[in-house]
Amino acid sequence: MPTLILLRHGQSQWNLDDRFTGWVDVDLTAEGEAQARKGGELIKAQGVAIDRCYTSVLTRAIRTSWLALAACDQAFVPEVKDWRLNERHYGGLTGLNKTETAARHGADQVKIWRRSYDVPPPPLEPGSEFDFSKDRRYAGATLPVTESLKTTLERVQPYWEGEIAPQLAAGETLLVAAHGNSLRAIVKLLFDLSAEAIIDVEIPTGNPLLIELDAALKPTAARYLDPERATRLPGLAD
Amino acid sequence: MPTLILLRHGQSQWNLDDRFTGWVDVDLTAEGEAQARKGGELIKAQGVAIDRCYTSVLTRAIRTSWLALAACDQAFVPEVKDWRLNERHYGGLTGLNKTETAARHGADQVKIWRRSYDVPPPPLEPGSEFDFSKDRRYAGATLPVTESLKTTLERVQPYWEGEIAPQLAAGETLLVAAHGNSLRAIVKLLFDLSAEAIIDVEIPTGNPLLIELDAALKPTAARYLDPERATRLPGLAD
Repeated sequence: MPTLILLRHGQSQWNLDDRFTGWVDVDLTAEGEAQARKGGELIKAQGVAIDRCYTSVLTRAIRTSWLALAACDQAFVPEVKDWRLNERHYGGLTGLNKTETAARHGADQVKIWRRSYDVPPPPLEPGSEFDFSKDRRYAGATLPVTESLKTTLERVQPYWEGEIAPQLAAGETLLVAAHGNSLRAIVKLLFDLSAEAIIDVEIPTGNPLLIELDAALKPTAARYLDPERATRLPGLAD
Repeated sequence: MPTLILLRHGQSQWNLDDRFTGWVDVDLTAEGEAQARKGGELIKAQGVAIDRCYTSVLTRAIRTSWLALAACDQAFVPEVKDWRLNERHYGGLTGLNKTETAARHGADQVKIWRRSYDVPPPPLEPGSEFDFSKDRRYAGATLPVTESLKTTLERVQPYWEGEIAPQLAAGETLLVAAHGNSLRAIVKLLFDLSAEAIIDVEIPTGNPLLIELDAALKPTAARYLDPERATRLPGLAD
């Protein structure tokens, strides 16, 4: 039966600095690298044979997949990288420290931007150093200038339905190494969660979420491979 | 114009142990990892933008490509892994220490197996621990049980002509991270070398060989990015 492993990248330098990262290509810290290796070791301990691996085009997710694949002795697995699995685009907040942003805009406003389903932050300002529209990894794509979780899901969904779900439907076991919000989008789609429910889902870093699916791609079981760092997963029959 | 970078993987544990490795999936040593990173830094210093990366399905070549791509800030480049870029299959010599093999078979015989163009070692014995025909990364492939450089080239050539050369012909810049003998096969094809000439080509580990090509995929220039560790490249007009 189809099996999906979702793996959120480990700590990046800007996680450590408490800055809004979004599409900025910040690398993993040494701690983030260790989290990725640990994720791979957990996959190895389960004896899971991965058929294919999907990541965003951001280094922290790609290197998480590499470190995890190496740690589970499956470096040879085909990899596919696509920007539609990128983190949510934080628009005009990109690069800002979260505490400073709360001081400037108010903690309530920042909470709305961070935790609402459909309220995007202000758009990226023209000429911003964080405008990646000329970056060759996005050639041919129409890029967002800000995203809510809702609009993040709207660009994840066609990729999920067009590229990932068909491989699952063919019975493959897939690893998707990506970001807090692109993985939330996948969880919302898979478990058919409401906007309110998905907002409360917080996927831990470096802790593989293994989801077993039936032939119609409905989840039949889901568990974090490190149960001590698991968070609640709504949407599964108890 | 098309550009090709050939990168031979860095030191593996069995290089260090002086054992015939071939298709055994031995990992890089810490020194081999450092060589791969250095290769990536040399690519970065040249400002080369890679469009696509090819590797074998052996961990030491894949991890060399990963470490090099990360070191040149191009982790996002699409990667393709194929067994036809694997190292030469050493047949019945696989796993043997080179000094012990010389003591048993004579130094002259071992030199013939290692350095002739078309003399393969004895085939892998049935039931050998180094029989990889059941390994899922080779599913659907008919695997060799021993190879000379000639028969290595005969399985590299269709992949070169069918997969890699068309991307070059489209104007791409490619990185091929592979092995001493699969890279020799590519060099022989590209530079149209004789059997005698290719035997004398020794590609250094972790030293990117940058080859510029014309529209007909004839080499117009070739240089190692670390000139201090360069070896002679026959076949180019002086």
